[in-house]
Amino acid sequence: MRAVAFERPGSVAIVDRPEPELLASDDAVVRIEAAGICGSDLHIYRGRVPTQPGFTLGHEYVGTVVAAGDAVSRVRVGDRVLGTFMAVCGACGACRRGEFSLCGGIRLFGLGPLGGCLQGTQAELALVPHANLTLRRVPPGLPDATALLAGDVMATGYHAVLAAGLVAGETCAVVGAGAVGLCAVMCAHLAGAAAVFAIDSVEPRLEIARSLGAVAVHHGEHDCRRAVGAHTSGRGADVAIEAVGSPDALRTACRVVRKGGTVSIVGVHAEPAAVAMDDVFIRGLRIVAGLANVVAHVDRVLALMAAGRLQAGPLAADEVPLAQAPEAYARFDRRETAKILLRP
Amino acid sequence: MRAVAFERPGSVAIVDRPEPELLASDDAVVRIEAAGICGSDLHIYRGRVPTQPGFTLGHEYVGTVVAAGDAVSRVRVGDRVLGTFMAVCGACGACRRGEFSLCGGIRLFGLGPLGGCLQGTQAELALVPHANLTLRRVPPGLPDATALLAGDVMATGYHAVLAAGLVAGETCAVVGAGAVGLCAVMCAHLAGAAAVFAIDSVEPRLEIARSLGAVAVHHGEHDCRRAVGAHTSGRGADVAIEAVGSPDALRTACRVVRKGGTVSIVGVHAEPAAVAMDDVFIRGLRIVAGLANVVAHVDRVLALMAAGRLQAGPLAADEVPLAQAPEAYARFDRRETAKILLRP
Amino acid sequence: MRAVAFERPGSVAIVDRPEPELLASDDAVVRIEAAGICGSDLHIYRGRVPTQPGFTLGHEYVGTVVAAGDAVSRVRVGDRVLGTFMAVCGACGACRRGEFSLCGGIRLFGLGPLGGCLQGTQAELALVPHANLTLRRVPPGLPDATALLAGDVMATGYHAVLAAGLVAGETCAVVGAGAVGLCAVMCAHLAGAAAVFAIDSVEPRLEIARSLGAVAVHHGEHDCRRAVGAHTSGRGADVAIEAVGSPDALRTACRVVRKGGTVSIVGVHAEPAAVAMDDVFIRGLRIVAGLANVVAHVDRVLALMAAGRLQAGPLAADEVPLAQAPEAYARFDRRETAKILLRP
Amino acid sequence: MRAVAFERPGSVAIVDRPEPELLASDDAVVRIEAAGICGSDLHIYRGRVPTQPGFTLGHEYVGTVVAAGDAVSRVRVGDRVLGTFMAVCGACGACRRGEFSLCGGIRLFGLGPLGGCLQGTQAELALVPHANLTLRRVPPGLPDATALLAGDVMATGYHAVLAAGLVAGETCAVVGAGAVGLCAVMCAHLAGAAAVFAIDSVEPRLEIARSLGAVAVHHGEHDCRRAVGAHTSGRGADVAIEAVGSPDALRTACRVVRKGGTVSIVGVHAEPAAVAMDDVFIRGLRIVAGLANVVAHVDRVLALMAAGRLQAGPLAADEVPLAQAPEAYARFDRRETAKILLRP
Repeated sequence: MRAVAFERPGSVAIVDRPEPELLASDDAVVRIEAAGICGSDLHIYRGRVPTQPGFTLGHEYVGTVVAAGDAVSRVRVGDRVLGTFMAVCGACGACRRGEFSLCGGIRLFGLGPLGGCLQGTQAELALVPHANLTLRRVPPGLPDATALLAGDVMATGYHAVLAAGLVAGETCAVVGAGAVGLCAVMCAHLAGAAAVFAIDSVEPRLEIARSLGAVAVHHGEHDCRRAVGAHTSGRGADVAIEAVGSPDALRTACRVVRKGGTVSIVGVHAEPAAVAMDDVFIRGLRIVAGLANVVAHVDRVLALMAAGRLQAGPLAADEVPLAQAPEAYARFDRRETAKILLRP
Repeated sequence: MRAVAFERPGSVAIVDRPEPELLASDDAVVRIEAAGICGSDLHIYRGRVPTQPGFTLGHEYVGTVVAAGDAVSRVRVGDRVLGTFMAVCGACGACRRGEFSLCGGIRLFGLGPLGGCLQGTQAELALVPHANLTLRRVPPGLPDATALLAGDVMATGYHAVLAAGLVAGETCAVVGAGAVGLCAVMCAHLAGAAAVFAIDSVEPRLEIARSLGAVAVHHGEHDCRRAVGAHTSGRGADVAIEAVGSPDALRTACRVVRKGGTVSIVGVHAEPAAVAMDDVFIRGLRIVAGLANVVAHVDRVLALMAAGRLQAGPLAADEVPLAQAPEAYARFDRRETAKILLRP
Repeated sequence: MRAVAFERPGSVAIVDRPEPELLASDDAVVRIEAAGICGSDLHIYRGRVPTQPGFTLGHEYVGTVVAAGDAVSRVRVGDRVLGTFMAVCGACGACRRGEFSLCGGIRLFGLGPLGGCLQGTQAELALVPHANLTLRRVPPGLPDATALLAGDVMATGYHAVLAAGLVAGETCAVVGAGAVGLCAVMCAHLAGAAAVFAIDSVEPRLEIARSLGAVAVHHGEHDCRRAVGAHTSGRGADVAIEAVGSPDALRTACRVVRKGGTVSIVGVHAEPAAVAMDDVFIRGLRIVAGLANVVAHVDRVLALMAAGRLQAGPLAADEVPLAQAPEAYARFDRRETAKILLRP
Repeated sequence: MRAVAFERPGSVAIVDRPEPELLASDDAVVRIEAAGICGSDLHIYRGRVPTQPGFTLGHEYVGTVVAAGDAVSRVRVGDRVLGTFMAVCGACGACRRGEFSLCGGIRLFGLGPLGGCLQGTQAELALVPHANLTLRRVPPGLPDATALLAGDVMATGYHAVLAAGLVAGETCAVVGAGAVGLCAVMCAHLAGAAAVFAIDSVEPRLEIARSLGAVAVHHGEHDCRRAVGAHTSGRGADVAIEAVGSPDALRTACRVVRKGGTVSIVGVHAEPAAVAMDDVFIRGLRIVAGLANVVAHVDRVLALMAAGRLQAGPLAADEVPLAQAPEAYARFDRRETAKILLRP
């Protein structure tokens, strides 16, 4: 089968790989019908996250189950499904508490050694471990480009808001208006925020955030704390979501949130960072961090998508054949498009 | 000054009363500009809640502060304000935890001895105790008919949803589509419910609920549990709100909620009731009950109204001069109108 | 093998049954070394819970794993184990949230048709389904008579306190000083209650509660609300635990708890009950009910037992050979002993 | 009256100051009978927290009310009282939610300009603002040396555990075995911790922690993560309390806590710190920080002291006359004593 594999920094290739086979009784094999290119794929593409040449990329997908082990009970061969970007064991202490993203045996699709060497889903077929947890049926009528967000960026935006404990009528600042940040904007609005602030330094992203109902704050042009304060009687936002994963974004989140507020971090931090602990302590902040618990959230996210309450909106994707993945990655890397869907 | 006073069951009268004066340093006097007639006023009108003839009715209002004691710091003479339906001390243990509706010295406007003999607000002037907690400024541009709901039925609907712990993407069944129930429908939708079910036996009310996006369930025609189950894969609603205050409504709420779900009671229960404790125990329900903590919620409700996220909608009121209160009460009692605003 | 089976109301018999065999890949077979007789066994003994003659009773046990299916990973043949009184699937929506006692496929050992026809553990051998969830290793040095409480009454007392949300420094009233109630007294004390009230009408039980540090309130002799009020500045207890399962006990729990307090019900309710909903509503109570989530709690309960912080104490059992079960049941039924351990 | 005043770094003096007078209607004046010297007083003594010469130190005290404004209702002249180390307004948004330590107008006794210039309590008399919130009656029979901890270090240790959300049966690591850390050890034990780890590099402190039932971990000699792991099946502690206020202590807390655990910071951070955000993100930690909400907690702490469940224990103080404060400070600064009580 054909697959999109990492070649070297700045280059992916279409390679031929053996078709995957069931290895465990709760494995499934999915024939991929649409696979997204996501911002986090660029970490490998750009060489920041090291992986071996030939590793298959990708973790967003919709497809049809073509094989399933005996222990797979929640989906069946022939079902159209989407998947979560992580595969978790379901049996460890964390999984048994429903805290799947803390699973001791967690693996991430298409992320190389760092993700537990689980081959990605930008391919004609994908092996999906622990399918009872990893896969969900696509609700009838839901477009692929929407559905495949449910196990990845939209569930992450949803998680950010839920973990922050946002209460209807409160205000929410989202630092970073990339795909996850925009999903967080949508989810904060969905959860009843009285106002959502989107903070970024890229004007086109802010323009999209505005179209979703957010108040745009141009980081760099504005003093962010003051800008958010101007809409919150000087208090700051009740919660702030850090959707970038940089020391600067974290600093901004801690600055725009109110005394006693919560900073919810879904941006990936891979290094130590200088944190204004004096500000954190004196203003009594609460910080929650970590990979989104998408296995727990995906059913609710899908219910909201099926009800029309969450939509792909600005994340609606350009579609190209799988064979064009090398050019698609290059275009995505140059930010010429917000989202690309590969069709095997 | 003129006031609307209880005369005898089925009759109110316009009476002349002395103008109120400040009694405590945190009192305010408000010149009433709009006063709502609310469903709970009918409890007195119909004689169910006993009060003495001559007692002024009403607890929903918008007006202007005309006098304020020395300790009143959060509003000033000249401010346009709305009020909460309860007055609380702010100093007892419950108030200091922010649980104002559990205040040891709580009084309810216009409810006679049961409410602590606090004269109502369907009058030209009203004395408002503990004004720092009871009064809020009307956000600029907000219509009176919307603003006066913020301290009463809308804050109660908001409370019902918050107390239930509804999470975005969950489903919510509201038993009773009167004013509070409809506000709960709006607030559940606002908080991100994937589906809201409105259960009532009066078709016009269900029609309004439908217009707010709810799935209408006709209690009497439908088996409610089955009807809700049909939209929830047989599970039942994640939370149920009991907005009637009857044993039958409570039974329905306990039946339509899922295993492990929460029943949030804001309908007033004044008598013991037979509860299906076997169902409650076996299905592991959580029940929360009590007067809404409107003093805590009113700021967020107002923020949502000011942002256009909560609107009076179907509760938009007919307006009549205060002098026509006797006929207005009679019409409201016959359910010929959903809401009436008295203009002194 | 020999087993203790229900014969008819008021009588059990030692019967011979075929040895159990593994039926599913996550089953285990345990050679029972100690099996408790628990108050809830009396429901069958007395004929209140109907079951067929010949059904094996019992659900508290310690033993050694003698066979285990391929999918059993958390215990091994040869391990000394104890079990939870329920067997849950681990795969349904509730189990995946960690809410095991809400499992759609829950079964209770030794309770006949009502418990899903899962044969009990008062026998030489027992078949244990879903062993990864049902079984735990006995910590070294922990006496059998303590360990077998961990998956049953002690975990239930623990659950009652946890579900009530008791905070260290609050007060707790426990209605019913039977085995579960006494465990709740111990757990409330463990969790830092400033005072624990034990309410019962049987003096010897109250005497035991006193020995555990509780303030004893004799239901019948005392006005319970007043008695609890006398120790709580008139407020009532912050939380009340209903460990009986009767309308009267529930009424008492609702009366002794403070305004805004929580009533946690672990007593089994099998019938509708008249509830003072006026009191519940006016005083703003929260009620939580249901089978204890012992599968989630058993590890923490065992850790506390291993650390010496929870002990069998007054629940320490008389030990008799399994063959004497008929007399033992009769003695236990006459309340001549607090607890009996059968030794196969 | 005589008072203990800051003179210059390393030196305090007994000075004569005018007797305080009531300035607001909710002020009280307290005749001090015992005033503690607390670790945080050393911040000023050592010159780290700048203040003006002549400023009165101290914030722990027991005394008798000798004057009270008209609005003081919860204590009366003649009452023996203790106080909280902070004075809060009771009227701002944070106070009305019961989050007093986030009060917009918070002041700290005896801390100079940084604390809002509120004169301290190491004096013959002290002016206490907002006395309804700041003062509590001393329960009968409670020794002064215990009671004066209730509004300061013990309430801070209690807060640390409560904010961490420790559940009975979980494990707790306390970083720093100073006064606050030891109080946290006591409170974690009180709240039902299955094990408490005390981490410090000073052996005598660890010895005290051992006497309180903690497992002592010598920071420097042990690899802390491994040492805590050895008692927690390799997982780490469920919660960690940072009671030092240094980057190193925070790093240790983040290292010894389990995946998904909570780090509760009560050590004062006055500067930015390098935080291992990669560890925080990858292991999904939750961090809560800030001044303890002692005004909310003091009643429960006092109830626990009155019940004998919390005791001064190792914090029992040496007592010296107020006049010997200069020597007492010097001794305390040299760590020759764990705690000193000044008697005016």
